[in-house]
Amino acid sequence: MRIEVINIGTELLFGRVNTNLNLISGILLRSGFKITKCVVVGDNKEEIKQVFLDSYKNSDIIIITGGLGPTFDDITRESIAESLNRKLIFDEKIWEEIKEKFKRRNIEPPEITRRQAYIIEGSKEIVNENGTAPGMLIEENGKLILILPGPPNELKPMLENSIKYIEEKFERENIITNIFSIIGVPESEVETRIRTLIEQNKKNLTILAHPNLIELVLTLKENEKEKFVEFENELREKFGLNYLGMNIGSVPELIGKLLKERKLRLAIAESCSGGLACKLITDIPGSSEYFIGGFVTYSNVLKKKILKIPKTILRKFGAVSEQTAIYMAKNAKKYGKADISVSFTGIAGPTGATPEKPVGLIWIGVCYKKDLFAENFIFSGDRQTIRERAVYKGFELLREVILKYEKK
Amino acid sequence: MRIEVINIGTELLFGRVNTNLNLISGILLRSGFKITKCVVVGDNKEEIKQVFLDSYKNSDIIIITGGLGPTFDDITRESIAESLNRKLIFDEKIWEEIKEKFKRRNIEPPEITRRQAYIIEGSKEIVNENGTAPGMLIEENGKLILILPGPPNELKPMLENSIKYIEEKFERENIITNIFSIIGVPESEVETRIRTLIEQNKKNLTILAHPNLIELVLTLKENEKEKFVEFENELREKFGLNYLGMNIGSVPELIGKLLKERKLRLAIAESCSGGLACKLITDIPGSSEYFIGGFVTYSNVLKKKILKIPKTILRKFGAVSEQTAIYMAKNAKKYGKADISVSFTGIAGPTGATPEKPVGLIWIGVCYKKDLFAENFIFSGDRQTIRERAVYKGFELLREVILKYEKK
Repeated sequence: MRIEVINIGTELLFGRVNTNLNLISGILLRSGFKITKCVVVGDNKEEIKQVFLDSYKNSDIIIITGGLGPTFDDITRESIAESLNRKLIFDEKIWEEIKEKFKRRNIEPPEITRRQAYIIEGSKEIVNENGTAPGMLIEENGKLILILPGPPNELKPMLENSIKYIEEKFERENIITNIFSIIGVPESEVETRIRTLIEQNKKNLTILAHPNLIELVLTLKENEKEKFVEFENELREKFGLNYLGMNIGSVPELIGKLLKERKLRLAIAESCSGGLACKLITDIPGSSEYFIGGFVTYSNVLKKKILKIPKTILRKFGAVSEQTAIYMAKNAKKYGKADISVSFTGIAGPTGATPEKPVGLIWIGVCYKKDLFAENFIFSGDRQTIRERAVYKGFELLREVILKYEKK
Repeated sequence: MRIEVINIGTELLFGRVNTNLNLISGILLRSGFKITKCVVVGDNKEEIKQVFLDSYKNSDIIIITGGLGPTFDDITRESIAESLNRKLIFDEKIWEEIKEKFKRRNIEPPEITRRQAYIIEGSKEIVNENGTAPGMLIEENGKLILILPGPPNELKPMLENSIKYIEEKFERENIITNIFSIIGVPESEVETRIRTLIEQNKKNLTILAHPNLIELVLTLKENEKEKFVEFENELREKFGLNYLGMNIGSVPELIGKLLKERKLRLAIAESCSGGLACKLITDIPGSSEYFIGGFVTYSNVLKKKILKIPKTILRKFGAVSEQTAIYMAKNAKKYGKADISVSFTGIAGPTGATPEKPVGLIWIGVCYKKDLFAENFIFSGDRQTIRERAVYKGFELLREVILKYEKK
């Protein structure tokens, strides 16, 4: 079975492509469906029609997102209606719902939003709780066409609500997908260590490289699912502690779980990473259970006043130094009596380098129980990549130090 | 002229699609080239060949990214070579370069990286300074094919280096694209206010909606560029202070520029936003010039100890309150003697709501000169959307309060 996704709109310039693709493929995968192809086109009627007709010819399920807004350049409705030789029909009930939504926000519904009350003849409405544009579901020649708005918070629940219908209509392939994560080992090293395992699963395995994390995505038929156990055992054997587990979600989620289970409370001190570590930790709902807070001591004055780094340390070794990283980690813990802490200080670039301290040099400090240390790394890449790599390396160190005490 | 981009690899599941598309289209637009279509396919040889041959038939320039890694599932080289009926040739010089790169990192080059030394017969190497996979440039039948690795920090400089070649080969369309930004006005309201302007520029205009920001992307021929001035004048008239300017980049960039020009130093206090505001401000290189630092007081204990929120305030009004937001903003300024500050406290969800304080309720505090106030908002969307909307609204308030004193 072929599933194609068509992303319509301005995403070719900027956008939401990534978020929406992750969303859509995640929701489908959980139900055992896999996307074959995705096409992104701008708001150009001829292009949209061409792309849609190609997908229509080849696919069983076509999921179209974007271009349902109220403004003139939102032409998904018209383009798909024309491609299917169907009319656009003004739906009084939907128009009433749209007006009602504006009234609840105390806004007079602008006349142009009337466009959103037009639906394609013969389509079923997919209710949009978080926005004004209704979705549409069309069945034709045994094919299923879903038309959904682009904003992720509208798209997500609408697709989730439509999944049952897809499951009823189409036999799922009875596949199960699991994701196995390995931290702190480069991609080529991962492949070298498990070459045989990869060879055996060649057709069902995908390797994803993230900052400091490799994910192995293995898809198996339901009747061969015991192979997942073998696969996981092999990973445990080959990677030891670097193997994180199955379907752990993101690394911040894993760290959150680790801390929560052990009732540990975390504090973070950031300089060059500028809040990214705190942001990633608090991306996870419920992080207030284990995250006390963070100190983004971007300037030296805050390093001195808040994290009590002695002037002499800053003068002698500089803000980017082992000593500063250690002080940062140690003193970040004190305010809220955290159990564990991590600190980041370095040169994220593109400026700020000195002959001794190149762009990419980051000191990461950790404080937990009797451990208080800092390690340095030189990360490559642009400013964002360096910051990301540093923060994920810091999360790895947190995990290591927690597990170290448990082995004893 | 048609330009198509093909993203190969695991992006269908997770990914880099967004970053790479932004990167590629940004680099091309600056040189006057516009992407027509983008296709994302998995690591499946038959799919890749089909997509490539379709693009080859219709396009003048084809930019392919991804699938050049060392591992078994990186099959871009093979797929494109087969599609073009060309051989893959082992390039000794490239292999030496790859080995050299590993040696510099004190790593023995794994045998599997040999795969990256194979290039398509008749292609020119595009040098990769930041990674091991070389890029390839192929010319055939007046068409140009660029094959580039997926990691953004490798892709970016390699595409930038190739642009000159594209410019020489293909006449650019002599178009200029400018982006005009409007803050704090909903999309439908923007369209209502400038309907005539939109009607006049219908074919060259795209409207992009971001959190709290609308971008109008206008593309004109070089010989009509005086129209940009008219366009901008109209926006100034219709949106006043809400019109931000032309090609401002991101909102954090704009805030950075505002602060830098006025020599103001910013401090941030965050609760529900958990470091996101600090992260966005420090995404901008050189932000240390105007950003003193931030306090991610996620727990009440840090709100009390660091930001000195009186216990009575927290007990009487709660952490999510006008009073707390005001104290946060006021006291965040003190440590590093910042000139201006902003604070965020609210319910980002999905849990934590009470009958009086729903998910999405955020208090934003601002302190600047004689101004010290907090405003509350109810943002809709999921956790990430709410946090994003709150932070961008806070940036808008910062801008407003700065400009307010200048009008006097």
